[in-house]
Amino acid sequence: MHPELRSRLLAACGPGHLFDDPDLRSSYETDWTRRFSGKAVFVARPPDTAGVAAVVAACREFGVPLVPQGGNTGLVGGSIPRAGEAVLSLRRLDRIEDFDPIAGEVTAGAGVTLQALQEFVRPHGWDVGVDLASRASATIGGMVATNAGGVRVIRYGPMRHQVIGIEAVLADGAVLARLPGLLKDNTGYDLPGLLAGSEGTLAVVTRVRLRLIPARPARAVALLGLPSLAAALEVLGAVRRRAPGLEAAEVFFPEGLDLVLRHARLAAPFPRPHACYLLVECAGADDPAPALAAALESSVDPASVLFATSRADRDRLWAYRERHTEAISAEGIPHKLDVTLPASRLAGFEALVRARLAEAAPGTRPILFGHAGDGNLHVNILGAAPDDETPDDAVLRLVASLGGSISAEHGIGVAKKRWLNLTRGPADIQAMRAIKRALDPAGILNPGVIFDLEGLTPPARRREDG
Amino acid sequence: MHPELRSRLLAACGPGHLFDDPDLRSSYETDWTRRFSGKAVFVARPPDTAGVAAVVAACREFGVPLVPQGGNTGLVGGSIPRAGEAVLSLRRLDRIEDFDPIAGEVTAGAGVTLQALQEFVRPHGWDVGVDLASRASATIGGMVATNAGGVRVIRYGPMRHQVIGIEAVLADGAVLARLPGLLKDNTGYDLPGLLAGSEGTLAVVTRVRLRLIPARPARAVALLGLPSLAAALEVLGAVRRRAPGLEAAEVFFPEGLDLVLRHARLAAPFPRPHACYLLVECAGADDPAPALAAALESSVDPASVLFATSRADRDRLWAYRERHTEAISAEGIPHKLDVTLPASRLAGFEALVRARLAEAAPGTRPILFGHAGDGNLHVNILGAAPDDETPDDAVLRLVASLGGSISAEHGIGVAKKRWLNLTRGPADIQAMRAIKRALDPAGILNPGVIFDLEGLTPPARRREDG
Repeated sequence: MHPELRSRLLAACGPGHLFDDPDLRSSYETDWTRRFSGKAVFVARPPDTAGVAAVVAACREFGVPLVPQGGNTGLVGGSIPRAGEAVLSLRRLDRIEDFDPIAGEVTAGAGVTLQALQEFVRPHGWDVGVDLASRASATIGGMVATNAGGVRVIRYGPMRHQVIGIEAVLADGAVLARLPGLLKDNTGYDLPGLLAGSEGTLAVVTRVRLRLIPARPARAVALLGLPSLAAALEVLGAVRRRAPGLEAAEVFFPEGLDLVLRHARLAAPFPRPHACYLLVECAGADDPAPALAAALESSVDPASVLFATSRADRDRLWAYRERHTEAISAEGIPHKLDVTLPASRLAGFEALVRARLAEAAPGTRPILFGHAGDGNLHVNILGAAPDDETPDDAVLRLVASLGGSISAEHGIGVAKKRWLNLTRGPADIQAMRAIKRALDPAGILNPGVIFDLEGLTPPARRREDG
Repeated sequence: MHPELRSRLLAACGPGHLFDDPDLRSSYETDWTRRFSGKAVFVARPPDTAGVAAVVAACREFGVPLVPQGGNTGLVGGSIPRAGEAVLSLRRLDRIEDFDPIAGEVTAGAGVTLQALQEFVRPHGWDVGVDLASRASATIGGMVATNAGGVRVIRYGPMRHQVIGIEAVLADGAVLARLPGLLKDNTGYDLPGLLAGSEGTLAVVTRVRLRLIPARPARAVALLGLPSLAAALEVLGAVRRRAPGLEAAEVFFPEGLDLVLRHARLAAPFPRPHACYLLVECAGADDPAPALAAALESSVDPASVLFATSRADRDRLWAYRERHTEAISAEGIPHKLDVTLPASRLAGFEALVRARLAEAAPGTRPILFGHAGDGNLHVNILGAAPDDETPDDAVLRLVASLGGSISAEHGIGVAKKRWLNLTRGPADIQAMRAIKRALDPAGILNPGVIFDLEGLTPPARRREDG
């Protein structure tokens, strides 16, 4: 490392927070999936926004590209170094500030974990609109940068919709600051919304102001056995129209349920199997159970419905859905795809994808489950070799042909780049590239994530960026 | 007009839909406010997306800048020509397509009016998430381009949050198409969200797919008299936490109520006046009245609450709020400002703004009302000369000093450009300019709206844009 760069980084991070020792670096070089890892030229852990800005400015000047990293819980390789980048860790930006218990708003540093924020606001009757299984590690900055989703998107939207103020460091080290938290602000382009989901390629998010959601203590869960996904979507339509506070609408199928019953040693939910299972949860200030029951009454056979209101009973029904991931892992190493279909094509996709996989990758077993209310299915494929992308390609091409998205929640990272042009057209990609070039002309921020850019100033060491 | 340009525009628009006759042009040259008008070099009314793309490509080639125009109901001069632009009217793109009554989604051409869309979806139990007084003229394309708000933002978010798919023509005539409608799509930058609120400066929106909201027939409205705006915000916090389905939370003050009572000849709502009035509406599948009453019980004196559930009674309470605009107009020509404050500073602003106005513009009378749940106040100022911007400047500087937004709903257009730098910092404006330059290097799309850009290729006639 150039001595001047080192001294500027040390000044920005403070002693003990700049390391290039391989042992100290290693936990920053491999992600949650263990599929992605690479060597970082160094790891910088600045303590605050000014420190982040100083790191970005120095690295830009010396031509060192940066991979911003929060809790490192991503699934698409977007938060670990690939080819000579440094890691910019945001974990020390862990302050929770300016909580407003009347309006339900709070400001969180990029490094605050979701769980820390949940534990901070819940005693005051508020909650965070997005919840995830990786809550203990996932950071608010990373969740904004990747526009995290989860099971409540149907009610509260993704992370982008929770953001009402942002502070971020641009590629030249300038600080974009708009933190007071404004629910309405029609003064030009929606930069917070643009940064949300940009996977660290346009700016480094340092703080966000979030709108909170009221904690909803009264909850009701119903698990339904149905003859098809189409039937499940019809019931869901009725629930959305008639029951208040629909917060989750999850589906799964016999192939996944069988694995869950076997690996988690659970009793079957119904005396006979069904072709599709729908789990809905409603939550409100008042008991949502009567309205949910009424919405289901006319459209479902009572023998195929299980109802739960107590915490323990709700957890018991949720287990059939939530234990899918571990049951699948117990069976083998799956290929994990995460796709959205237009609502009208979701049921058709579910039927087609099995046939398409049988044809393209004989001997593979698809296990589907996901967030039916959002058109989002997780397609897990067992029985394929780890490096064989044939099944992935077959599924994603089918998704694209039906007008869907190849990544509902996980993002593109480096893992899905190959298929980006399947679902985003030439004008779309051209516009994205133009925005990337405009905001990061030197290609210093998370290069190689989402797309590769030819024509960007190569991130080689130099002193002048012009 | 160059003969080749004319023939290309005629081919794109069809006979009768390209005019430069002053009589035919005139209705496109003055907006809803009548404050803004200018001469259009011509008006082009293409019938569809391909026609829009052909008009944009031809105009870019011949160096004719375009002002995209929908229903022309904007309030900030962003939809009328200013200095030699042509008007690109989207009104013929008025098809409603692909309505999905199960998922609650629909595709609307840019020229579909809000009212036409409401009338189309309501018989099926669905509604549009944004509603506005100008619904008969305002078009869906214009509402997306300006990120329209309204009284329901507290529940459903602004227009940006309704958009789940978009089709738009970029400055080079390329068509960005992502229409199937995806609730989750983490495949790169959120271009639909970026175009929403960009006021026609980045692309021309031609079609959008919208998520719909379930029609909520059961409604309850409460009008409360309170000792202060701070007290109103505290009650509102309790309602948000405890009552389901809060859909509107409006405030007004004695100065406005007095005008309404006088001009609309209404009876006073309460036997004695209060310092602040709060109107809340809850809506659900089931009657929301008991939960609303319970939420209010502990925090409000029963003598200062009026409750309504029937349509007629609700309308009677809403009239006190809704008739503000006409009552103010009957009194004089107001300066209209539209600001958001951070939640914690809204009450402080309300007290300060009167003092600040008395100091900066003695003899003016502020009338405040607005959407308390969003921190959005409409500041109407009576008694100021039409061209005297002193009171506007004083109010907007106060807003900025408190971390607010100088335009909550109306946008910047040309009217608020002067104050943009009060609330968006240098890094913010620099990033916006970079995006504008990246997507519209020739400066062909609504030039001079939001900001003026030096260094853009001047929109003078030429054949090559390089």
